[in-house]
Amino acid sequence: MSAKQLPTTAIGYSTQDKIVINGLDLVDEVMGKMGFTELIYLHMTGNKPTPQQTALLDLVLVTLMEHGLTPSAIVTRLIHYSTPEGIQSAVAAGLLGVGSTFIGTMEGCAALLDEMLAAPEGAAARARTIAARHRDERRAIPGFGHPIHKPDDPRSGRMLQIAERLDVPGRHIAALRELGVAVDQAYGRHLTINATGATAALLGEIAIPSAIMRGVAVISRSAGLVGHIGEEMRTPSGKHIWNTVEQAIPYERA
Amino acid sequence: MSAKQLPTTAIGYSTQDKIVINGLDLVDEVMGKMGFTELIYLHMTGNKPTPQQTALLDLVLVTLMEHGLTPSAIVTRLIHYSTPEGIQSAVAAGLLGVGSTFIGTMEGCAALLDEMLAAPEGAAARARTIAARHRDERRAIPGFGHPIHKPDDPRSGRMLQIAERLDVPGRHIAALRELGVAVDQAYGRHLTINATGATAALLGEIAIPSAIMRGVAVISRSAGLVGHIGEEMRTPSGKHIWNTVEQAIPYERA
Amino acid sequence: MSAKQLPTTAIGYSTQDKIVINGLDLVDEVMGKMGFTELIYLHMTGNKPTPQQTALLDLVLVTLMEHGLTPSAIVTRLIHYSTPEGIQSAVAAGLLGVGSTFIGTMEGCAALLDEMLAAPEGAAARARTIAARHRDERRAIPGFGHPIHKPDDPRSGRMLQIAERLDVPGRHIAALRELGVAVDQAYGRHLTINATGATAALLGEIAIPSAIMRGVAVISRSAGLVGHIGEEMRTPSGKHIWNTVEQAIPYERA
Amino acid sequence: MSAKQLPTTAIGYSTQDKIVINGLDLVDEVMGKMGFTELIYLHMTGNKPTPQQTALLDLVLVTLMEHGLTPSAIVTRLIHYSTPEGIQSAVAAGLLGVGSTFIGTMEGCAALLDEMLAAPEGAAARARTIAARHRDERRAIPGFGHPIHKPDDPRSGRMLQIAERLDVPGRHIAALRELGVAVDQAYGRHLTINATGATAALLGEIAIPSAIMRGVAVISRSAGLVGHIGEEMRTPSGKHIWNTVEQAIPYERA
Repeated sequence: MSAKQLPTTAIGYSTQDKIVINGLDLVDEVMGKMGFTELIYLHMTGNKPTPQQTALLDLVLVTLMEHGLTPSAIVTRLIHYSTPEGIQSAVAAGLLGVGSTFIGTMEGCAALLDEMLAAPEGAAARARTIAARHRDERRAIPGFGHPIHKPDDPRSGRMLQIAERLDVPGRHIAALRELGVAVDQAYGRHLTINATGATAALLGEIAIPSAIMRGVAVISRSAGLVGHIGEEMRTPSGKHIWNTVEQAIPYERA
Repeated sequence: MSAKQLPTTAIGYSTQDKIVINGLDLVDEVMGKMGFTELIYLHMTGNKPTPQQTALLDLVLVTLMEHGLTPSAIVTRLIHYSTPEGIQSAVAAGLLGVGSTFIGTMEGCAALLDEMLAAPEGAAARARTIAARHRDERRAIPGFGHPIHKPDDPRSGRMLQIAERLDVPGRHIAALRELGVAVDQAYGRHLTINATGATAALLGEIAIPSAIMRGVAVISRSAGLVGHIGEEMRTPSGKHIWNTVEQAIPYERA
Repeated sequence: MSAKQLPTTAIGYSTQDKIVINGLDLVDEVMGKMGFTELIYLHMTGNKPTPQQTALLDLVLVTLMEHGLTPSAIVTRLIHYSTPEGIQSAVAAGLLGVGSTFIGTMEGCAALLDEMLAAPEGAAARARTIAARHRDERRAIPGFGHPIHKPDDPRSGRMLQIAERLDVPGRHIAALRELGVAVDQAYGRHLTINATGATAALLGEIAIPSAIMRGVAVISRSAGLVGHIGEEMRTPSGKHIWNTVEQAIPYERA
Repeated sequence: MSAKQLPTTAIGYSTQDKIVINGLDLVDEVMGKMGFTELIYLHMTGNKPTPQQTALLDLVLVTLMEHGLTPSAIVTRLIHYSTPEGIQSAVAAGLLGVGSTFIGTMEGCAALLDEMLAAPEGAAARARTIAARHRDERRAIPGFGHPIHKPDDPRSGRMLQIAERLDVPGRHIAALRELGVAVDQAYGRHLTINATGATAALLGEIAIPSAIMRGVAVISRSAGLVGHIGEEMRTPSGKHIWNTVEQAIPYERA
């Protein structure tokens, strides 16, 4: 790496009386003038969001925040029990669960939508190819289906409905709906668009690159996990979780 | 633990067609109706926030989000370089830096404000005792002073100003200002209220328990760290950081 | 920090044909000549261990490695389920549970032994003071008692027995035994020296500073957690743990 | 999952006077009778190791433990600076750097060796195919080449030499040497077998499944990182690292 190629940062700097982040004066141009979600968008993309972009990002952050006693939440509770002095440790441990098993489908669906929107033969034609390919290979289609919410995931319908009322381009949402039609035809039954599928479409609409979409889930879930610590402080469950799991997995020589 | 004392959760549950979080129907009562910051408040405290409470929490989240190339941000960049497939790992590693060195002063200041507000002799009298005690023990007063921002941390003045314009009780803010007066008198020079001190007062105003205040910083910083990953994807610095540090710490036998 | 005070490292460096760690040539002086436990001791303390020191450190590493389905192990299993591609994430999450709740007693016991060994009135006299103080304050004595292993923790007796057969100074072990006598007298009943108490004495004997004793537990537990991932790859339990915990903590409005 | 398919554990259990791990009585059959490395092998594979298997695993643990100021070590130092009370946090953060960038090549090389050993046309013929494929696709061959150690990584020669003196099957080592010949021929120049390549062969020899090989590196590195914390306690470098990196990445608007 030659001297002129050394990396720089556009994120910010401080002087004695000034703090600049993302090209704005924190005190004069951000505090009291931009909201948290607006600033997240600016920070992630380098661009100030439109009100519609802020609204959609906020909707995604609200929708993904909390899902009850998920693996991440159980992990956060157990680490809080083990190290009550370190809230950050309990959240960090839980966030390590925002991995491929749960969030990979969002990225997988975003990739399918990108593939459709770039297809020379048109999105609808490509949707049929994609649906047939997954069916023939007996693979799950990322963004579709749900183990509990049948026939439809109530979140995804609401997400798409709110988004369609806003003045956004609509291409990713339209692509997702087309994919849904193709999927139902290819499989001969209805598979719901699930919350990760709808999230992929909404984040695509607001130009969040698919490579960093998982970061939105991480921010949202960090708030969810702090809530679990709050409940744990009021109603501790760590020891009960431990005892329960010990009893649920008996000893048996392999 | 007897059967009737087994822990329960008030956070939420799902059925086939419904998701409830914090006592609200996610689809009908939260999505499109509550913002991310509102939901964070509800999730952390169990209570729906007033608009003023939402505004103050949002202000804190905005203020703490980003501070440039802090230890946490450097850590996130190095872990992203080491494991680019895991955004959650890079954020989790960085969040582990939201520990006592940086955020302990917020909690320490909150404890002083609580002590003042509960003092039978009155907050101002207790402020003088606290300031004298720290001066005599040559200890830093949490929430005061800043290595770069002199004479005043520009963030704290702005935070208190915005808060005072809103209809909040004002007791914690008044206590912090009284403590500032006592500190300047005890030390014979001006020490700025810094951003962690102002944060302690604002979160006190909106009834966030001091035990979980660090969680607000964790949520806010998680968004800051995702922004660093975004920049790292566009302008990688991980290898440069590594090389720079290797050269900055030479080998020498102990 | 002035230029001449800049930190250096004594840990190591590499050249084109040589790697030096802890002052030794890795290829010629370490590989095939020193064992893992020996190298851990050298790396932690800067000194080459005697065979007795190596044996005691190895004994501690063996004893602490594995305790079945502890909170750390449950966490590692859940994170492995969530992100099977990242073994390091699952181990890191589990290690975050090696905190004050489980390992703080080792450090607390080490501090008591240090206090006894430095007491002008002698270790036995100070032991009586310590035991009385904890009894009067109704505080648990770190390193004593066990919820399951009664009357005695079988590990601690064996640890002390092995150590006493080796040619080590014996001061920390003697202090721990004296503390045990004082505890039984003060409480009027027998409280076992537990494994964390015996560990504190053994690590004290081999001059591991109490500030870094937790690091020995971290190394040992990292191996234990890798074993849980190995079993998880053969017999997955992550989903079963999740389902079990969900059912064990019912929803109830606060 | 039906009742009879519920997962069990073969790792261990405790009763009032007994602790069993991996089918052995911890106190009577493990403590003082098995070493740490032996127990790691048993715990990872379910089988008691031969002395040769123990020696090779120990050699790998020694070789991978420490590499100076790597990204993982820098991360551990910065987190220790941020949260000195939590050794486990500093180690966990550093371990998150044991990801695809550094350790992926070990797994990649292990996969190539497995491919060669299973090839109907014989290992040497498959080696030529593999080398040609990577050359034609201009991809690095995992386990070969090193940015600093030229012409040869001194660790890998020593690792293979020690292993060949022991009574191990030798198939993976022979395959790695054959692959080395094929690589040199295909590229028309000498590429060193590096330490990750030699590690893949040695762990293959002792029947550590490639899926969990990364776990060996995690255990080894955890010890290395504890050593960095030890040095940090004696000679703090965290603030110096922070300052150095801040100056090395200047602010520039994108």
